[in-house]
Amino acid sequence: MTNVGAHPEHRTRISPMPLRARPLGIHTLDEPVAFMRTDCHVCRSEGLSSRSRVLLRSGDRTVVATLYQVSSDLVAVDEVGLSEAAWSLLGVVHGNPITVHHPDPLTSFAHVRSRIFGNRLSPGQFREILDDVAARRYSSVETTAYLVSGSSFPLDEAETVALTRVMVDLGETLTWPNTPIVDKHCVGGLPGNRTTPIVVAIAAALGLTMPKTSSRAITSPAGTADAMETLAPVDLDLPAIRRVVEREGGCVVWGGAVGLSPADDLLIRVERVLDLDSEGQLVASVLSKKIAAGATHLVLDIPVGPTAKLRTAAAGEALAGRLAAVADQFGIATRVVITDGTQPVGRGIGPALEGRDVLAVLQQTPGFPEDLRARACALAGAVLELSGKASPGEGVVIAAQTVANGRAWAKFQAICEAQGGLRTPPTAPYQHSLTALSYGRVTSIDNRRIARVAKLAGAPGSKSAGVEMHVRLGDEVSSGQPLYTIHAETPGEIEYSLDYVAAKPDIVGVGGA
Amino acid sequence: MTNVGAHPEHRTRISPMPLRARPLGIHTLDEPVAFMRTDCHVCRSEGLSSRSRVLLRSGDRTVVATLYQVSSDLVAVDEVGLSEAAWSLLGVVHGNPITVHHPDPLTSFAHVRSRIFGNRLSPGQFREILDDVAARRYSSVETTAYLVSGSSFPLDEAETVALTRVMVDLGETLTWPNTPIVDKHCVGGLPGNRTTPIVVAIAAALGLTMPKTSSRAITSPAGTADAMETLAPVDLDLPAIRRVVEREGGCVVWGGAVGLSPADDLLIRVERVLDLDSEGQLVASVLSKKIAAGATHLVLDIPVGPTAKLRTAAAGEALAGRLAAVADQFGIATRVVITDGTQPVGRGIGPALEGRDVLAVLQQTPGFPEDLRARACALAGAVLELSGKASPGEGVVIAAQTVANGRAWAKFQAICEAQGGLRTPPTAPYQHSLTALSYGRVTSIDNRRIARVAKLAGAPGSKSAGVEMHVRLGDEVSSGQPLYTIHAETPGEIEYSLDYVAAKPDIVGVGGA
Repeated sequence: MTNVGAHPEHRTRISPMPLRARPLGIHTLDEPVAFMRTDCHVCRSEGLSSRSRVLLRSGDRTVVATLYQVSSDLVAVDEVGLSEAAWSLLGVVHGNPITVHHPDPLTSFAHVRSRIFGNRLSPGQFREILDDVAARRYSSVETTAYLVSGSSFPLDEAETVALTRVMVDLGETLTWPNTPIVDKHCVGGLPGNRTTPIVVAIAAALGLTMPKTSSRAITSPAGTADAMETLAPVDLDLPAIRRVVEREGGCVVWGGAVGLSPADDLLIRVERVLDLDSEGQLVASVLSKKIAAGATHLVLDIPVGPTAKLRTAAAGEALAGRLAAVADQFGIATRVVITDGTQPVGRGIGPALEGRDVLAVLQQTPGFPEDLRARACALAGAVLELSGKASPGEGVVIAAQTVANGRAWAKFQAICEAQGGLRTPPTAPYQHSLTALSYGRVTSIDNRRIARVAKLAGAPGSKSAGVEMHVRLGDEVSSGQPLYTIHAETPGEIEYSLDYVAAKPDIVGVGGA
Repeated sequence: MTNVGAHPEHRTRISPMPLRARPLGIHTLDEPVAFMRTDCHVCRSEGLSSRSRVLLRSGDRTVVATLYQVSSDLVAVDEVGLSEAAWSLLGVVHGNPITVHHPDPLTSFAHVRSRIFGNRLSPGQFREILDDVAARRYSSVETTAYLVSGSSFPLDEAETVALTRVMVDLGETLTWPNTPIVDKHCVGGLPGNRTTPIVVAIAAALGLTMPKTSSRAITSPAGTADAMETLAPVDLDLPAIRRVVEREGGCVVWGGAVGLSPADDLLIRVERVLDLDSEGQLVASVLSKKIAAGATHLVLDIPVGPTAKLRTAAAGEALAGRLAAVADQFGIATRVVITDGTQPVGRGIGPALEGRDVLAVLQQTPGFPEDLRARACALAGAVLELSGKASPGEGVVIAAQTVANGRAWAKFQAICEAQGGLRTPPTAPYQHSLTALSYGRVTSIDNRRIARVAKLAGAPGSKSAGVEMHVRLGDEVSSGQPLYTIHAETPGEIEYSLDYVAAKPDIVGVGGA
């Protein structure tokens, strides 16, 4: 039996006329969006409607975009308007011809649907899904479904290992001639926790190799890359990173410029919108970047506190266990340090303010934030012990000596010079202090809300903006004593953050005597 | 101990200047979108970024929208551009002042997160979630997370009952003086399955009350409301529905105009994008509308076939069982009819073509589609038996008599007149037949692909467009014999559907002799 079903005979295929590309200057984060007239011939002939997914083609480049139809003169009937993401991915100039079609069916989404209904995924299925995510063929709705499918019914260890492997394979990788290659990672959520530059300086000063790639803030007031950028350039490409690390033993650069895990960068944006981390995805996200960076020894900082990301020690230890088990499968030795997450770290919250804290610790400036120094030395000590540079129990002492004797500061200056030159963090032109209303003792500091104040003041977009803390838990304060100072680049941003403070009077809780 | 923490003193709150509303004519389905300049004072002072959720206020109306920032002259620096959905929900005119703020935190999303992590939801939690969905405070990403949270870890019966109740409470409800109130519902997925108008005509002709609200197509070539609209007006409000039903005993109207389950209408759009029905959500969706319409007796048509929505009898029966169990909790008697879903029903696929099939059956026109008549009579027979109008086993006979003796046709005409006047379905100006290439027997018809051909030809937007089937499974065909005819309102749409047919030669499978 052969299939001889109907097909159309004796006709010429009418190729759809291309539309002309038009930039609309619309920022959608990284989601490509196309705007076409409802009455354009392509919408009619292709049967397209608003929110259809469309395949845009210009030359040999293609992008899958979400379509919004337009019934105004925003675009002409023979034009396709493009969001900035679609525009840059297609690499077009105004007026370039673009053809628009239905995209191929998203076959990997069948795996997501299968997982939603309780089936585990094979390495091959993860690969198909992540390939499509990395190629931006998933809309935010489809990405959400994928992420939730791994939360409700958690990934097991085999799936987490498979996912980690796929995420490594999708990106660039760094290899180094010698081992150990040390790394550290903080499982987020604590304002001002800017230990990384100090840890790298200590480790490199003692001869270890620590090629550190860090992230920028997405929803927080500063990522390590944002803070480091106030001290030195961080947008280095792979050859530049290699040069810095070969010369100085360490670096602190922005990982997003390198593409160690391109799918992860896209997934993280949706996770942050949802404020939803599934353990499996989190483990794969963290470890894929460490594996890609060539790490052999990894210290994990897991702050635990009522307003930190992890609220109980049990939750922190469970996550630590999964991270260590999966890392082990990739030959990475790990050590977990559960740290105090009850209040912000150091004084500054915001890129430049955190940069200044780092400098104060390394330079041993009088009045430097002792808590930041202690945390950084604890983590550096763990790095030293894990990699065999220090005997058990001695790491923190050696780390502290390396700060005290100025070797860490000398190494940090050398790293900054190698990355393009040491910078002085900027100072905000507008500042406003919040004061205690009466005598009392500081009983609570809400990490999430103080971070929000810093963001409303302009951090991380405005480098000098943020919050400078003057008190820590347990401090006694008298009436009129400053609790914290808001820093901003405009008076409006000061006002706006003060509106928020007025609505949330318990950001810094002060108990009466 | 009292909380006497910091607050800002002695300052005047600076109220943000409103922006001017500007309509952009952008269609986003029902998702409100706002477009604001990156450099506008509100974006800066509120710390807004692209994809932020923003609260738009005009007078006493508010809408939560997704923000896209703009760096072009699409909008002025003191304007906020609005999608059509945002525009109509705010009820503004060009230039009206609109203030823009951060929206209140979406507290009900904590329940979604909780469910994602394996906790069941209480009736009160479902109410908070669905309240926010109905008020359009959920973005499509958040809606997706909610929907998937009920798929991966399926809703139990108590949750399904709670959800159904909440969805009923959110919408309008109809009450009727007498019982029984009969209804039918098809759990989708079969092109041309347009039995509803015939079943209503039979039931009403025999004195039953059947106030039928139907849906329009979202991803299919025609919904019952689309097909019925080619025969009579369907956009009736609640008083008009009441008048028609009091006079004629039945109606076939569009439920979307009535608002029986407003949250469901928003959820369904996302479900269709994902092609994902969770059983609990599906059951609540179907039953909430039946309960709101006042139904006491409900017949469920569940087509099963390899290219239907439900692919196995076991899947059909499992769904039927859950539907019946939940309906029972609301005092609704149900009967499930598992029907043949291996091929399209009747001849026509598309609004007018299906309308014509309905007329042919009711008028007993020579050559009427016998399969459609038989299905409609089987379902009407189940309605008659379930409601006590016929003894077990006699329903189908009485239904068939009611069609044969013209009483169903007379009742249908009366219903159409009561709804605003009987119409003649339009005929498409362009038609193209697909023919068999050689002698053989029809071995398969792909429901999903034939539906796609009808949509590419313009259905349901173009009322007369679609596909007219000439063969059924098992038919012998000779070379050159027409298998089906594409109907369209433009030559381009004929061409476009033919392109698809050329790429998918096995839409109608013909086995060689």
